[in-house]
Amino acid sequence: MAAPERSQLITLIHEFADAARVETLRHFRQSGLTADNKSADGFDPVTIADRAVEQLIRDRLAQMRPDDGITGEEFAPVPTRSGLTWVIDPIDGTRSFLSGSPCWGVLIAVADQSGPFLGVIDQPYIGERFLGGLGMAEATGPQGAAALHCRATPDLRDAILFSTFPEIGTDDECRAFQRVSTACRLTRYGMDCYAYALLALGQIDLVIEAGLNVYDIAAPIAVIEAAGGIVTNWQGGAVGPGGQALAAANPDIHAQAMALLNA
Amino acid sequence: MAAPERSQLITLIHEFADAARVETLRHFRQSGLTADNKSADGFDPVTIADRAVEQLIRDRLAQMRPDDGITGEEFAPVPTRSGLTWVIDPIDGTRSFLSGSPCWGVLIAVADQSGPFLGVIDQPYIGERFLGGLGMAEATGPQGAAALHCRATPDLRDAILFSTFPEIGTDDECRAFQRVSTACRLTRYGMDCYAYALLALGQIDLVIEAGLNVYDIAAPIAVIEAAGGIVTNWQGGAVGPGGQALAAANPDIHAQAMALLNA
Repeated sequence: MAAPERSQLITLIHEFADAARVETLRHFRQSGLTADNKSADGFDPVTIADRAVEQLIRDRLAQMRPDDGITGEEFAPVPTRSGLTWVIDPIDGTRSFLSGSPCWGVLIAVADQSGPFLGVIDQPYIGERFLGGLGMAEATGPQGAAALHCRATPDLRDAILFSTFPEIGTDDECRAFQRVSTACRLTRYGMDCYAYALLALGQIDLVIEAGLNVYDIAAPIAVIEAAGGIVTNWQGGAVGPGGQALAAANPDIHAQAMALLNA
Repeated sequence: MAAPERSQLITLIHEFADAARVETLRHFRQSGLTADNKSADGFDPVTIADRAVEQLIRDRLAQMRPDDGITGEEFAPVPTRSGLTWVIDPIDGTRSFLSGSPCWGVLIAVADQSGPFLGVIDQPYIGERFLGGLGMAEATGPQGAAALHCRATPDLRDAILFSTFPEIGTDDECRAFQRVSTACRLTRYGMDCYAYALLALGQIDLVIEAGLNVYDIAAPIAVIEAAGGIVTNWQGGAVGPGGQALAAANPDIHAQAMALLNA
């Protein structure tokens, strides 16, 4: 990719994340925030803010890069003509958002045929941004800037594991997760995409989830890979339609966790 | 209590929380943070930061209010001669702190014979403070100031429930919690003391925990009561040695949750 295009992609991903901050914070913790129920058998809230953010990014892309594809949570996909696709989850962690918790995030990634190569995890309320790809791996937040760098914990016994829900996925998936959890030093729940940011920051060692959609994991893949970590499905391949993700700080932890997931 | 003393207590609680911010942020997300293992059968980390914060507050109290008692997580209690006792958890959510998560907090409360009447939940990294008691109920943070006010959700079916760990406590306590969880719209984990702040902010409806120590719940009691909410044990009495806490946004939700806890 030529330097001017790289530069344009970086400028745009920041612009989109900046705009998403403004839009999400107009709604976060406001009374009267509504949640439609998308799911027949559970609580899958979609807020005004979700849709507004995605629409805003789509409008800007139609103007600036009309040949790029778009895959987003809220609206129909736009096929790519340029070879590049923007992958957007306007609010990852809508349940966190609706609870006032500060651990939801805006996920924006750019992918080519090999997968996501540039991504942002942004937490508007805290004012934190985790950016990875195209040679960059950086966090900016209330305490300034820091390099993203996954840590070298060699053994699962010393590892900190995160996932969003203790139920994980199917019963089998939950049992597989429990095998890893039991072997780890500490397991924590409830962080949504923020857990992937903590992995890239070198604060934790593993995030294991199931049932993810492509827009839940594209930006985390770019950010974690830029920080030296590994994201695969539970068999070591690319995260696919089953939505199983195993994100690890290093190859040792990845191998040990994968062995237990498939034991 | 005379106005000058009320004013001194408010000034001091802010001063302590300010000092705790500086001290905790010196250690938060720093490499080389150590965690001793206090617990024989699990992972109960105590960091340098925990001890430094509590010592700093104890030193200042010895100077400014030597007749007040002190109950803290890290050091021996100081008996009260004034009738007032400061209750301190220097870092509530040490596991969150060690994971880089921003949902730990500094808890400082002042109690008399009737219980805590002034409290602060402070989140240093986000820069958020939740203060309640002596006529005040206010949050300050990155988006400015807001009044604390628990919400009026009348029915458990519409309620959002938080707890720190899905294991809750004993097997019986876990089953009791699950009866409430099943009846709620949404259950989330992993927020530590931040969940009590969300309740006071009117963002969620219930926090149910077990195995708490007095220093885990004193400040949340003061903040939530100031915001119009209710904090009791699972039988409706004062939170006692068993450490069962049921914090609710309003009497309707409190009664419905308590009935299921004891079903």
